Amino acid sequence: MNQRWRLVRVPGPTLATTDFDLVDEAIRAPADGEVRLRSIYLSLDPYQRHWLAGAAGYGAAPRPGDTPIGRAISEVVESRDARFAVGDIVLGETGWQTHPTVDAARLTRLDPTLGPLSTHVGVLGSPGLTAWVGMVDLCRPQPGQTVLVSAAGGAVGSVAAQIAAIHGARVVGVAGAPDKCERIVREFGLAACLSHRDADFPARLARACPDGIDAYFDNTGGTVTAAAWAQLRHGARVALCGLVAEYGQGDVPGPSLRHLLARRASVTGFSVRENLQRLPEYRQRAAAWIRDGRLRYAEHIVPGIARAPEAFLALLSGATFGKCLVQVAAVPPTAAA
Amino acid sequence: MNQRWRLVRVPGPTLATTDFDLVDEAIRAPADGEVRLRSIYLSLDPYQRHWLAGAAGYGAAPRPGDTPIGRAISEVVESRDARFAVGDIVLGETGWQTHPTVDAARLTRLDPTLGPLSTHVGVLGSPGLTAWVGMVDLCRPQPGQTVLVSAAGGAVGSVAAQIAAIHGARVVGVAGAPDKCERIVREFGLAACLSHRDADFPARLARACPDGIDAYFDNTGGTVTAAAWAQLRHGARVALCGLVAEYGQGDVPGPSLRHLLARRASVTGFSVRENLQRLPEYRQRAAAWIRDGRLRYAEHIVPGIARAPEAFLALLSGATFGKCLVQVAAVPPTAAA
Repeated sequence: MNQRWRLVRVPGPTLATTDFDLVDEAIRAPADGEVRLRSIYLSLDPYQRHWLAGAAGYGAAPRPGDTPIGRAISEVVESRDARFAVGDIVLGETGWQTHPTVDAARLTRLDPTLGPLSTHVGVLGSPGLTAWVGMVDLCRPQPGQTVLVSAAGGAVGSVAAQIAAIHGARVVGVAGAPDKCERIVREFGLAACLSHRDADFPARLARACPDGIDAYFDNTGGTVTAAAWAQLRHGARVALCGLVAEYGQGDVPGPSLRHLLARRASVTGFSVRENLQRLPEYRQRAAAWIRDGRLRYAEHIVPGIARAPEAFLALLSGATFGKCLVQVAAVPPTAAA
Repeated sequence: MNQRWRLVRVPGPTLATTDFDLVDEAIRAPADGEVRLRSIYLSLDPYQRHWLAGAAGYGAAPRPGDTPIGRAISEVVESRDARFAVGDIVLGETGWQTHPTVDAARLTRLDPTLGPLSTHVGVLGSPGLTAWVGMVDLCRPQPGQTVLVSAAGGAVGSVAAQIAAIHGARVVGVAGAPDKCERIVREFGLAACLSHRDADFPARLARACPDGIDAYFDNTGGTVTAAAWAQLRHGARVALCGLVAEYGQGDVPGPSLRHLLARRASVTGFSVRENLQRLPEYRQRAAAWIRDGRLRYAEHIVPGIARAPEAFLALLSGATFGKCLVQVAAVPPTAAA
């Protein structure tokens, strides 16, 4: 049987596990051009919250009965397409289900020798590429500059922070829980990491960045962004990657534009979607940094598809550390790096 | 005597002519390295409102008794500096007074043969350079794209709009009064100009930009900017030049950042101050465009230093058209272009 999560309703501002239900359905036999898959890892990513909120740019609006969107790493178990053979490991937007049958054209074959399979949706995949594009193209860190990264314990933020450090910047992170902040400093080598839950967060941020902020990799929006803009230096760059603090809340006003005007600062929204062709180049660099010990990564792997909604809510609440995945099935021995 | 405007008090959120008073003082004899001037034109510019509000980046905060800051075009009437001779026409930050005696190092000699004297603080001066830098470097208009310009009847906006049109863009302006909008379309050749005072301005803007906005030259902030961000196209560029709608109001929240994220759009604050070395290049281009009839300019010249505060308030309220100046004295026949 294919176990598939469905949307019970289009979620309101507060997402709940009861917005989803898990159903057993017959596995569909592939037609010509299709392949039948066995899901191994579901990738949980903040952008999925955007889709649930009906935001523009994430395909068709969600409807009751829909399978929640999301990338998964899967094994081909039956193929009616010449491009894929049984046993191939593939990546695709196949959603929260255990045995999808899909159009082969929507899949990409992965090379398991490049790294552990899970890293293809983490440090060696879209989150890593997102971090690299936003940091190198938009934040443009220089030696000695101060770079701020919000959600610094996440799959994107942790890589962005370390890439800034590799470029010689002094890196300050922001996360939720104080113990998570300590772990971020310890594992990713940041100069400091602040909890945005502290009542005097803006003052602490000012003290942690005594010369101001030269670049800000923004994963969150909200109060962190308001405090960060107030500390921008002349010519500062802000890479706007996500607004996880504002999802589902409609039009949340932004900080005053006078900070950008007074500091000759720039803010640029971006997405990895326009940069996927650069994945091979990024992957090569990241693999070298990992070998050199300059780029570390963490994973939060939740076993069993039954826990997908719970794991997704934990991700959105900031309770996870590193790349968040659901392990649906064991990695085949042939696909171990 | 030197007639000099003084600040009676540091103005609150609403500026009034009674915040200033005009005094007669003895003309000061120049010391070594100084020159004595006769002011001809005072340049009125929105950035002066920033200084009055105590904003960062405009020198020392205003105090009662201060002369309001501002550029002026003047004639040298006595010189104790080898760089300047009697009769030279100079530009300097000499403020609202008729006969300043100032440090010669703060002055720039003007070439009256380049154009009418008033244009050295208008279309051939800082406002024109501001428009050129913001439009060409930041808005980067392409043929067929839609470019929006707020305060399109002003010294900066009118030039920015025409430069966008010279680059092949379809240009939509925004201004206050409907009759001003009509005049902007007629004199500067815009595709359309909308009044932000219309109750249904956001809907009118959407109709005037059916394909969305590729670039926005923002002189105002406020409700115009909120409506503009909601219409940005994928990859849109916003050049943030001024926030005249928000002066003196402290931290006015900006529009939702989700517009920038969803559209992969960028906003960049800038100032002419970092670009003054490009004035000769701009001036050459602008002079050629004026000769070709592709760049037109308008001036609002108020006679008599006694009317400086009144003229400045008219500028801020949107009641003027084109470059706003106070004529303090006649242009010497030797300085006529």
